[in-house]
Amino acid sequence: MVAHPDEHSASRPPRRQRSDGERSRAAILHEAARLATVEGLDGLSLARLAAAVGMSKSGLFAHFGSKEELQLATIDAASAIFDELVIEPAGGEAAGVTRLQAYVERFLDHVEEGVFPGGCFFVSAMSEFDAHPGPVRDGAVAFSQRWLTLLAEQVASAQAAGELDPGADPSQIAFELNAYMVLGNMQFVATSDPAALDRVRRAVSARLSALAV
Amino acid sequence: MVAHPDEHSASRPPRRQRSDGERSRAAILHEAARLATVEGLDGLSLARLAAAVGMSKSGLFAHFGSKEELQLATIDAASAIFDELVIEPAGGEAAGVTRLQAYVERFLDHVEEGVFPGGCFFVSAMSEFDAHPGPVRDGAVAFSQRWLTLLAEQVASAQAAGELDPGADPSQIAFELNAYMVLGNMQFVATSDPAALDRVRRAVSARLSALAV
Repeated sequence: MVAHPDEHSASRPPRRQRSDGERSRAAILHEAARLATVEGLDGLSLARLAAAVGMSKSGLFAHFGSKEELQLATIDAASAIFDELVIEPAGGEAAGVTRLQAYVERFLDHVEEGVFPGGCFFVSAMSEFDAHPGPVRDGAVAFSQRWLTLLAEQVASAQAAGELDPGADPSQIAFELNAYMVLGNMQFVATSDPAALDRVRRAVSARLSALAV
Repeated sequence: MVAHPDEHSASRPPRRQRSDGERSRAAILHEAARLATVEGLDGLSLARLAAAVGMSKSGLFAHFGSKEELQLATIDAASAIFDELVIEPAGGEAAGVTRLQAYVERFLDHVEEGVFPGGCFFVSAMSEFDAHPGPVRDGAVAFSQRWLTLLAEQVASAQAAGELDPGADPSQIAFELNAYMVLGNMQFVATSDPAALDRVRRAVSARLSALAV
């Protein structure tokens, strides 16, 4: 999904030398993804972003032909950051319940650490664009679908390994686990209270316990 | 929480005759609440709202002294609509599991019927303002807290009536049930697929079954 290297691609071999143009594009998109979780993807004005990265508006125009192009590139950049911090490290854990729990823990860590100051980039983007059909919404929905599929795959692995009730619907369980993460993320950003993230941990633990065989 | 009567206050006695000024204020706020779920509360420009309600910008200025005043009044109006369509009808059901399920069903109905075209007003508002401290965020958080308290009260009633495991934490269960509603709402708005709402029903049913005594 990611067309451009950035500082967060350290775990993706092979790393080639980047030109100054690519380097600054990556820096711009990283800042754009952070800003978008606070001001919205629609609030990503070239003027505000130029100020945040210390460039001229005309310099930014050279990187992005349109606001929509900038928004789509920002979604790709956020996706790469999420891959690096959440999906890839959890992917190193044993398939099944262990990896499922790792997805949840890594997700909560990236929220608590403020990787994006407005919390999960994709919760922000989905909520902002859910009523706006178009490529930006499609990009956010596709990411969300990929995340739900990853969760469902680990539920299915856990069923195959005899860890969870084989009668449960993996997609349904993925929906439920993701629901806890989405609401916990929103509450944590709004209140800065880590209790919101503990509620997610308790919810996930109770749901998986109820399905244990 | 609601300072101004509107068309949605039919169930709140006593109803007094409204002046033309009040009537148009109510109509403006109803439209503002609908618009805010699509364009955001921050996207509620006086120009856009004036066009939506067929008034001049100067006419709107006479009603609202500032954008923040308009945003806060819009939150009150959305709260009154939610009270009328979700909270009050469910409040007529028997306390405990029956009323809890009625809260969920009424919530899903108001999402499916498109009362607000961008789905639940408060999910939109929380997600938009969670990273923006101030009275608007406080208003959205207070509403969300009230809703969670209503759900937790019915969990506690169900426990007292012997319907649900008395060892469960009512606030935790309220969090989990609300999480299903919040994610189902976002998915339904983004995809228009009622399957998202069925997932919520299945999740709530499974969670309450696991707690049944």
